[in-house]
Amino acid sequence: MTTCVASSVDVALLGCGNVGTALARLAAQPSGPHLPVTITSALVRDPSRPRPLSPAARVTADARALFATQPAIVIELLGGTEPARPLLLEALGRRIPVVTANKSLLARHGSELRAAAAASSTPLLYEAAVVAGVPFLGTFARRPQAAAASGLVAIVNGTSNFVLTQAVAGASVTAAVTEAQRLGYAEPDPRNDLAGIDAAEKLAVLIQHFAHRAVHPDAIETRGIEAVSPAQLAHARELGGVIKPVVTADWSEGLTAFAAPAFVPAAHPLARVDGVENAVLLDTRHGRLLFQGPGAGPAVTAATVLDDVREIAAGSVAAGAGGLPAAEAAAPETEWLITIDAPRLPRPVDVADLLAAHGLFTRASSSRRTADGQDCQSFLTWRAIAPRVELALASLRLASGCTTAALRALEVPA
Amino acid sequence: MTTCVASSVDVALLGCGNVGTALARLAAQPSGPHLPVTITSALVRDPSRPRPLSPAARVTADARALFATQPAIVIELLGGTEPARPLLLEALGRRIPVVTANKSLLARHGSELRAAAAASSTPLLYEAAVVAGVPFLGTFARRPQAAAASGLVAIVNGTSNFVLTQAVAGASVTAAVTEAQRLGYAEPDPRNDLAGIDAAEKLAVLIQHFAHRAVHPDAIETRGIEAVSPAQLAHARELGGVIKPVVTADWSEGLTAFAAPAFVPAAHPLARVDGVENAVLLDTRHGRLLFQGPGAGPAVTAATVLDDVREIAAGSVAAGAGGLPAAEAAAPETEWLITIDAPRLPRPVDVADLLAAHGLFTRASSSRRTADGQDCQSFLTWRAIAPRVELALASLRLASGCTTAALRALEVPA
Repeated sequence: MTTCVASSVDVALLGCGNVGTALARLAAQPSGPHLPVTITSALVRDPSRPRPLSPAARVTADARALFATQPAIVIELLGGTEPARPLLLEALGRRIPVVTANKSLLARHGSELRAAAAASSTPLLYEAAVVAGVPFLGTFARRPQAAAASGLVAIVNGTSNFVLTQAVAGASVTAAVTEAQRLGYAEPDPRNDLAGIDAAEKLAVLIQHFAHRAVHPDAIETRGIEAVSPAQLAHARELGGVIKPVVTADWSEGLTAFAAPAFVPAAHPLARVDGVENAVLLDTRHGRLLFQGPGAGPAVTAATVLDDVREIAAGSVAAGAGGLPAAEAAAPETEWLITIDAPRLPRPVDVADLLAAHGLFTRASSSRRTADGQDCQSFLTWRAIAPRVELALASLRLASGCTTAALRALEVPA
Repeated sequence: MTTCVASSVDVALLGCGNVGTALARLAAQPSGPHLPVTITSALVRDPSRPRPLSPAARVTADARALFATQPAIVIELLGGTEPARPLLLEALGRRIPVVTANKSLLARHGSELRAAAAASSTPLLYEAAVVAGVPFLGTFARRPQAAAASGLVAIVNGTSNFVLTQAVAGASVTAAVTEAQRLGYAEPDPRNDLAGIDAAEKLAVLIQHFAHRAVHPDAIETRGIEAVSPAQLAHARELGGVIKPVVTADWSEGLTAFAAPAFVPAAHPLARVDGVENAVLLDTRHGRLLFQGPGAGPAVTAATVLDDVREIAAGSVAAGAGGLPAAEAAAPETEWLITIDAPRLPRPVDVADLLAAHGLFTRASSSRRTADGQDCQSFLTWRAIAPRVELALASLRLASGCTTAALRALEVPA
């Protein structure tokens, strides 16, 4: 009789960039009481480039050669939807468990991947896709009582949070982006981060995970941090808060969501999540839970991917429930921070009157002169829908010739 | 051929008080896609008392009768060490998985229970034992990369945190305790909470879980919140912080720990964990992780226990690694908040000189007159060991006739 016991967990890497390299280094460290994880193959564009993989590893540009190594687990680190999508569908079809950190792919094709995983009873883990350094997604997938949530608000893009934190401290957005790139916090091309696209994708993944609905990220109200002005940052402070790059979703009835820089009152738990930190505040049946920590970076992403591999290798991960119903996310009714710039401003009381005539009632206001000698007023309003705000601002511009801008405002949780 | 498929998860309750009652109610709700959890037996002192259990459930004062029902999982909600300890050892010996919320038992006999669980390859879960409403312990047990931590600081006793939060807002400690009892946050006998014993027990469980060492809770430096004076609360605010009931442990080299009210600077993530909220800040290899949420209460504890049952029923929980080495926890070197009361105080500069002569160097100070006309000075010092502080305060009392007190002070994490 021959007994076969695996002496290592053989994994195939799809992609071997920064995270793949960090993962190879981490997997090469002593694994203590756990089976070693061995990268036995890697799919790359250029197999001739040197990589920190074992000479025994099959490094190839050919997916068939990769699957021929019969990996126990496929780790997807390609990013983007093609060719990641067909490759993961093939892996799941072959009953090979998948670990991915790819929020773009999950956001756009998560339902299809979940359906494929369920159809073949194969695990699909993605802890590193959102708030990469803090394990919480897998936890809630196993715990239905804890996961009975009705909404969330979060900071999920570290680059945007770093840039706004620096801007609050006086830096220009451009300088802060350069600094983020120098520190390795921002991609060489940071447009997806700064335009809110990365955040909207992560929000779509969170909505899939907690609300069990598939919302296309392009259909979520999304704004980037580029449009945030120094005057808005200063006014936010005077009105007792700070501007943060937030995402929110609520599914207590219907589904509302947005991904945008917003005014966050100082007493809100997200107001002090600074720099590259990420955080998720989840409204559950049994209270409000906060998970906070590092959101990205090759080392922490690789560590989280490796933990997903460990969980699958321990046989402790069940396949999910399958595809998700498609849903629309409406823009919510929120409070607003409205700022008005002009060489010569109308009286604040007249502005408040005009806003009120459009159903926008002010709860706080502040006035100041900016560094370049312009006057600027700002108003924090009670809740209103976006079209009301747009109409009010258009009237105001028409009546006074002012420049106007509006950001959504969070409320302090009860 | 007969196929046997379980149609429910049959559990035995050890104890059926507040949490057991909440659990029975929760388990009776529709279970969605999950198998129903059925309480088939309960061990209670007085079986004749009415309880919200099915008439089919075996309610008994006899442990043998309970085990005779052949439960799939035993849930321990007795509290205390006897008879919980022998009953759980018996369950694990019979290879019956155990869920417990009993921090006293785990703190004092956790190593023995872990050894028994490992010996019979049987799961032992205790997510509700520390920060009952926030799932994180099981998560780290599965994820070795994330769990590579070197220290933690936490607020784990909601009653003490509620009382100090109320006291900061002006209430007396006695009034705050009464209010906590009225709201159901404090036990009818809150001594274990107020004296720091509950916190020290939870700290011992956290040290087992993350540092893999067994420290007896009685051997951890422990102070309760009763000794915190209104003057200390006021001085903490003037020195830019707040007094919180914290526990800390560090095992980056050796092991240090304490459970005591401490000065927490405003910029520390724990400074704004208010009311009955709990939080754990974990120093990991890949960054600092914060988990925050409700810490206790029958409903949330029952929900967490039920999720532990679900995880075991899903077959996704491995047995642990076994018993733990016994360890001593030394008192750490920390910063200190020193307060000095007297009808007539020495000059602050003379106090600072005397403290400095004992190696206690002040980094901030404040003076004020209390409501009863006494003068009070306070000093925030740089790091020092406790014996140095005791000696300095003794000298000060001798030289000036002052009343003195000292609390440890946390530093803002780098």
